[in-house]
Amino acid sequence: MSGETFDVIIVGAGVLGVATAYYLQKNSPEKKILLVERTLAAGQANTAMSAAAVRNMFASSTNQLLADTSLNYFEHVQEKLGYDLLFEKTGYLWLLSEEQFNQDTVKVWMERMKKSKIRYKVYKKEELKKMIPSLNMDFAGDPEAELMNLQEVSFGLFGEDCGVLDATRLVEYYFEEFTKISNVKPRFGVEVEKILLDADPTLDLPGEPYAWQKKKANGVITDKGTIIADVVVLATGAWANQLLDPIGIDSMTKGKKRQIFVLHAEDKKELEKLLDTKGFNEIGCIPFTILPSAGVFFRPQLQERGFWTGCGDKVGREYKYIQTDEDMVPESSYYENSIYPVLSKFFPAFQGARPVNSWAGGYCYSPDRIPFVYFECGVLVVNGASGSGIMKADAMARIADALYRGEPEAELFGGTKIPSNTLSIKDRDVEVESVVL
Amino acid sequence: MSGETFDVIIVGAGVLGVATAYYLQKNSPEKKILLVERTLAAGQANTAMSAAAVRNMFASSTNQLLADTSLNYFEHVQEKLGYDLLFEKTGYLWLLSEEQFNQDTVKVWMERMKKSKIRYKVYKKEELKKMIPSLNMDFAGDPEAELMNLQEVSFGLFGEDCGVLDATRLVEYYFEEFTKISNVKPRFGVEVEKILLDADPTLDLPGEPYAWQKKKANGVITDKGTIIADVVVLATGAWANQLLDPIGIDSMTKGKKRQIFVLHAEDKKELEKLLDTKGFNEIGCIPFTILPSAGVFFRPQLQERGFWTGCGDKVGREYKYIQTDEDMVPESSYYENSIYPVLSKFFPAFQGARPVNSWAGGYCYSPDRIPFVYFECGVLVVNGASGSGIMKADAMARIADALYRGEPEAELFGGTKIPSNTLSIKDRDVEVESVVL
Repeated sequence: MSGETFDVIIVGAGVLGVATAYYLQKNSPEKKILLVERTLAAGQANTAMSAAAVRNMFASSTNQLLADTSLNYFEHVQEKLGYDLLFEKTGYLWLLSEEQFNQDTVKVWMERMKKSKIRYKVYKKEELKKMIPSLNMDFAGDPEAELMNLQEVSFGLFGEDCGVLDATRLVEYYFEEFTKISNVKPRFGVEVEKILLDADPTLDLPGEPYAWQKKKANGVITDKGTIIADVVVLATGAWANQLLDPIGIDSMTKGKKRQIFVLHAEDKKELEKLLDTKGFNEIGCIPFTILPSAGVFFRPQLQERGFWTGCGDKVGREYKYIQTDEDMVPESSYYENSIYPVLSKFFPAFQGARPVNSWAGGYCYSPDRIPFVYFECGVLVVNGASGSGIMKADAMARIADALYRGEPEAELFGGTKIPSNTLSIKDRDVEVESVVL
Repeated sequence: MSGETFDVIIVGAGVLGVATAYYLQKNSPEKKILLVERTLAAGQANTAMSAAAVRNMFASSTNQLLADTSLNYFEHVQEKLGYDLLFEKTGYLWLLSEEQFNQDTVKVWMERMKKSKIRYKVYKKEELKKMIPSLNMDFAGDPEAELMNLQEVSFGLFGEDCGVLDATRLVEYYFEEFTKISNVKPRFGVEVEKILLDADPTLDLPGEPYAWQKKKANGVITDKGTIIADVVVLATGAWANQLLDPIGIDSMTKGKKRQIFVLHAEDKKELEKLLDTKGFNEIGCIPFTILPSAGVFFRPQLQERGFWTGCGDKVGREYKYIQTDEDMVPESSYYENSIYPVLSKFFPAFQGARPVNSWAGGYCYSPDRIPFVYFECGVLVVNGASGSGIMKADAMARIADALYRGEPEAELFGGTKIPSNTLSIKDRDVEVESVVL
């Protein structure tokens, strides 16, 4: 397939790649858009490794807008278009200590949510105790808890429009919609090795491009041959550096390994009770819950009657510049030593719970935890979602499409408009996101 | 030397390392401070590869302050302390096209310089033509110039307090002052392989630190053994990622190769004339000059009667995550193809000029082109100077010292105070720097 020519090549069929493919093709039906993916199916790399929790409860107005409009679209897809994403509004419950609740960053977070009309409630200690009787809120006289730096729960910050969904179904939705309207068959098992950066115009001299020449990407070199395209879309998550560094574009992103451990509730009375906690949502289940210590969280998994648990560990968990195979391997010792002790202290119902399954993948962090979408020298980069790519995918893809079409503004689902350069590196003017897991 | 104990270990004896060593020891005379360096002498890695030009003409008020106070200190060292740094106020001359001069970023640059009392002058085309008769200001009818995207010079932005100095002498100054007051002999040829990040307190369990434990750096592992220190100072420039990534701190910096080519003026009448251009400074020489195209610049080198030239190439020059030996090797084709064509178009005096010497080193870029100085988990990081570490070294080192001593403010040379967290990642609140080479 050497020397084939397309209008656009989209590198990466994770959630950001397929959503971008869909909007690009939808709004430019005449364009030949080729989607290529390293693995053998769409959404089976990092997208599939996600906890697939979705929330509009961010502290920066930019992330709020990206997530809120995307969530509304997902609801629309499920309710109006009848495509079941297993989107369940479990809500998000942040358990906070008195000290945490009174931090300036939490105040700013709540103020900005109010301003953006993001719905949330504050639960006090007594209410929480009633609603979740098995939550341990008192560590007085527990030397272990002190040793573990555990914070006592005093407040719950609850977002009722948040929830969980099925990442694979979401990817399938965009992928199917894209393939319905595209004339170009997506290709799997194709590894992109290099972006072709040429002088524009080229002089056919050795060693081009020179410093004084304009430059433009004209396609990619893959392990199956060269593919020429007018625009190269990079939706490669934590793999972007490998392709951007050599052409002198700093992706400003970096990876970090994240792991999910699956715990079943079946036949464990206390865990079943916790899973079926009433009062937070219409489903009658425990919300996606973040503990006040060590970044430990769990999500309810109703289809398999259990929980997924993980941890947003900070210092001590290495940053990875480029993802490796090792990042796809979960560590059982991590569950045993870092997650379980915290989880079972706050929720004794988890005592003795051992994972029946686990997996790992990579986050792609941006410095301000706001995603990147920008167009430079023929490369359209869509990445840096910092672990919340699923919940922002729809908005990010619409922005990428507006940039592709040269529109100054992108229209997000629901009609809100946002300048197309909002998520660029060069014209960035965003609040730093403080609420990341 | 296994298990030795110090109060501070400073990793890296480049200009930032030695300046930090000096202020730390000066203000904490009782502390045992060990300076270690991978190479065999201070300031012989990237510091020595710099063009060693120094300017206070930045667009961000933060960089203006860092550089202006550092330059004033260098002048003080040379004039009052009698330590010759070969600091020469040649001035900095930015040659700009009409279009460039009218850009918003240039307007903001000038406004902020006025506000910060950074002295500068604007020269018009006619004045420049008179002062530098050999400057080619007219490319009309030159198809090559058009092909090369050359901008015609219409304005000159001149900073009279800027200049050049000798990087090695500056390093020697700080290094000598440090060794005079330190009881610990610096060590060369020591390669730091790893930062020791321990649980704080440690429980002596396998696999520590866990996610719920506090963490603190307690020293480093080197190729000559382990060195225990209460604080680890990282002044390693573009090598910081190798040490910070594994402990989960994102340095947010990235390297890029930069090259200098030496051109002699001796016996070349036109170049001698250009070197001896009068009217800009008291020395009677051409200023450090930046051309309006492709990022090409030159500095006068009076001791060897010649010029150093280089190029701040953007897209097309790869970003490097970690410096390699290859980054220390200059490319003659780069001079021939990228620098020389531009240089000789604007200044025909360079026609036929070929380098008599050349070298290469690495910049350490931060995302906003403002340096980083922050203290996290026992690691004090001083880096990200984005190619202007020499000219900001004094201020950065004073800020590092204030952080070390837990002072909320650092006092820079001349008495200006700045919050010690100004250059941190977490509390950063700076204007993005737009004037970088």
